[in-house]
Amino acid sequence: MKFGGTSMAGTERIRRVANIVRRQQAAGHEVAVVVSAMAGETDRLVNFCREANPLYDPAEYDVVVAAGEQITSGLLALTLQALGCKARSWLGWQLPIHTDNAHAKTRIGEIDAGEVIASMQAGEIAVIPGFQGLAEDGRVATLGRGGSDTSAVAVAAAVKADRCDIYTDVDGVYTTDPRIVAKARKLKAVTFEEMLELASVGSKVLQTRSVSLAMKEKVPVQVLSSFIDDDAPLADELPGTLIVSEEELEGLDMESQLITGIAADKNEAKVILTRVPDRPGAVASVFTPLAAANINVDMIIQNVGRDKGETDVTFTVPGADLVRTQALLEEQKPQIGFNRIITDPKVAKISVVGVGMRSHAGIASTMFKALADRGINIQAISTSEIKVSVLIDEDETELAVRVLHTAYGLDAVEDAA
Amino acid sequence: MKFGGTSMAGTERIRRVANIVRRQQAAGHEVAVVVSAMAGETDRLVNFCREANPLYDPAEYDVVVAAGEQITSGLLALTLQALGCKARSWLGWQLPIHTDNAHAKTRIGEIDAGEVIASMQAGEIAVIPGFQGLAEDGRVATLGRGGSDTSAVAVAAAVKADRCDIYTDVDGVYTTDPRIVAKARKLKAVTFEEMLELASVGSKVLQTRSVSLAMKEKVPVQVLSSFIDDDAPLADELPGTLIVSEEELEGLDMESQLITGIAADKNEAKVILTRVPDRPGAVASVFTPLAAANINVDMIIQNVGRDKGETDVTFTVPGADLVRTQALLEEQKPQIGFNRIITDPKVAKISVVGVGMRSHAGIASTMFKALADRGINIQAISTSEIKVSVLIDEDETELAVRVLHTAYGLDAVEDAA
Repeated sequence: MKFGGTSMAGTERIRRVANIVRRQQAAGHEVAVVVSAMAGETDRLVNFCREANPLYDPAEYDVVVAAGEQITSGLLALTLQALGCKARSWLGWQLPIHTDNAHAKTRIGEIDAGEVIASMQAGEIAVIPGFQGLAEDGRVATLGRGGSDTSAVAVAAAVKADRCDIYTDVDGVYTTDPRIVAKARKLKAVTFEEMLELASVGSKVLQTRSVSLAMKEKVPVQVLSSFIDDDAPLADELPGTLIVSEEELEGLDMESQLITGIAADKNEAKVILTRVPDRPGAVASVFTPLAAANINVDMIIQNVGRDKGETDVTFTVPGADLVRTQALLEEQKPQIGFNRIITDPKVAKISVVGVGMRSHAGIASTMFKALADRGINIQAISTSEIKVSVLIDEDETELAVRVLHTAYGLDAVEDAA
Repeated sequence: MKFGGTSMAGTERIRRVANIVRRQQAAGHEVAVVVSAMAGETDRLVNFCREANPLYDPAEYDVVVAAGEQITSGLLALTLQALGCKARSWLGWQLPIHTDNAHAKTRIGEIDAGEVIASMQAGEIAVIPGFQGLAEDGRVATLGRGGSDTSAVAVAAAVKADRCDIYTDVDGVYTTDPRIVAKARKLKAVTFEEMLELASVGSKVLQTRSVSLAMKEKVPVQVLSSFIDDDAPLADELPGTLIVSEEELEGLDMESQLITGIAADKNEAKVILTRVPDRPGAVASVFTPLAAANINVDMIIQNVGRDKGETDVTFTVPGADLVRTQALLEEQKPQIGFNRIITDPKVAKISVVGVGMRSHAGIASTMFKALADRGINIQAISTSEIKVSVLIDEDETELAVRVLHTAYGLDAVEDAA
């Protein structure tokens, strides 16, 4: 079980969390709980570090920020004890959760779970701070912001958990953002691959790294709400969204969907380089410096130019990297030999995602037709095995998502009443 | 060097601390720094624990409250780095500072200082959170409130420091409370024994345990102010008060004082049991139950009673224990056989302290005469080798302290100007 910062914000909320944990144990489970810091606490600690030293030593930064989860893990253990449960905290260095030495953005390696498994078997609830571990250098390490989801999946894998329940402030994964489409439906289950595609294009429910790890370790993950009443269904009744492998999904005998969800991402920016020489290596000379600068280029289209021997190159980069991208390309202009750079930060990437599309043709054409029918212009297209993405004008984001949600039959059916 | 919570309250103050540390290192020292949590932080964390579970598990309480010092130790290391110093934090479990298993009030045992000494010799400033250690059970331990002074002395002993400088919000130890006597003088040096007597009767400068440990380990301690300017004298010039053994004090060639200081303690309460049978065992039957209840009886006087075969017994207990004391004695009334209990919480204990009194007669009589001359009635007397204490009416506390301060020649001489 994993609880985020909103769920841990203050002793009253921690009591609600403890009650959920207690019910789960009472249902016959051995339980380990991974906790985030209280909402706002990590920001407070990070700000202290910035004030102390803008160019901070990541190893000391880790010492400071790991304290937030240390506090909530002790408090949850105390609260569980107040409810009559046996419970104890296990700090990152105590298990230990081994990590590499890349302080402030470390990755989890081995977890020595022997002691904690024995403790759980003896009826004790294990409370484990997320986001932290013990680096090879023997010092406190943290995983980078949002790392507690990853901690939870790693601990679940280490204790060989039947399931990793991630309690959040949403009650599951939806076909699309319910703030855009009122008829968005909560999904009962998605595959790891679908979740990765949905997450990487803007669904903020789970940290991408945690989904990759769950896929690698084959840990079934459930996303569900921590804001539930005492008589709400237990997590075992799968009230949230289950994230599993494709094989397990088939075994679940759920209503099959061609398309699982639709995601929108407004954080991309479009770059057009006009009149790039159409010779071997020219396009590579555009993208090599961007890759070296760690700028993540996404959609790439090469248009046939008006003049023979020249071509326009269009691509997208994260909006936050647009200024750096322009500067790097201007610097490389003599080597690349383009005419000018046209940029447009006001674009959105709309993606339809579903493992079902592997075996079905016509998914992309449904998309293009539905958008064309509403006069939405497609500026670029990219596809993967289980995803089709298009780039459109940012102003048309909500319209496009609604149109596609209906076109793929995802709208929730109104209650008969 | 040790800095308290007021000195660590916020990044701006931590920068002042870092600057003091940097200057000390620049003067040619290897430096280890022990830090408290930010002022108010430990209270905040203790309150969280109380809210979570009023009957809290001390081991989990330790996990929560130790976070405060963890945060400031990381922040001070970062700030020192920003000033161009090499610095790193060493958490209690990293050295480790071994303690027993009495969580929340543990005692320091061995400290493995090998690594930290090597690091200091390599020019790195060691920053160590006070108040915390590693219990035998492998878990975080804390020393009880105010334990950071003790941590500092223990670390100083472990690294074989020349001196332990304790920076506080006062600039040293005074002949008496300067808020009572404007002419109180700052002492250049006192012995450990004197400091213990002064501390135990009300001077709140250092935690008593830290002084006992310094005496045992023969660590010279200096109390000095952390609120100093950049051009203030270095700690090496002994701007504060040095606390040392009697032999070292003699070696310092300082002006000898018969009396070092005068302390007042308003936290005592007086109890009189009238008409206790004057037979063997009767007095023991008064104090045995109090000792069993951990009530610290201080001054004891046995008056000859009006009637033969009976006696009045007067003694003092901490004011906070007065109600419990009364209840226990009422319970034991049949066994003890006294007539009635008279209590008076409005008393004060005034003590004159000085190692010089060992070799000088007349200290006590000077005290009694000075008080009698001002009409101050002495209700009880107790003495030790280096201390004479009297019990008086609480309302006369300030008057008595001023009278004695003058009588023993402690008043500061006015500047010639």
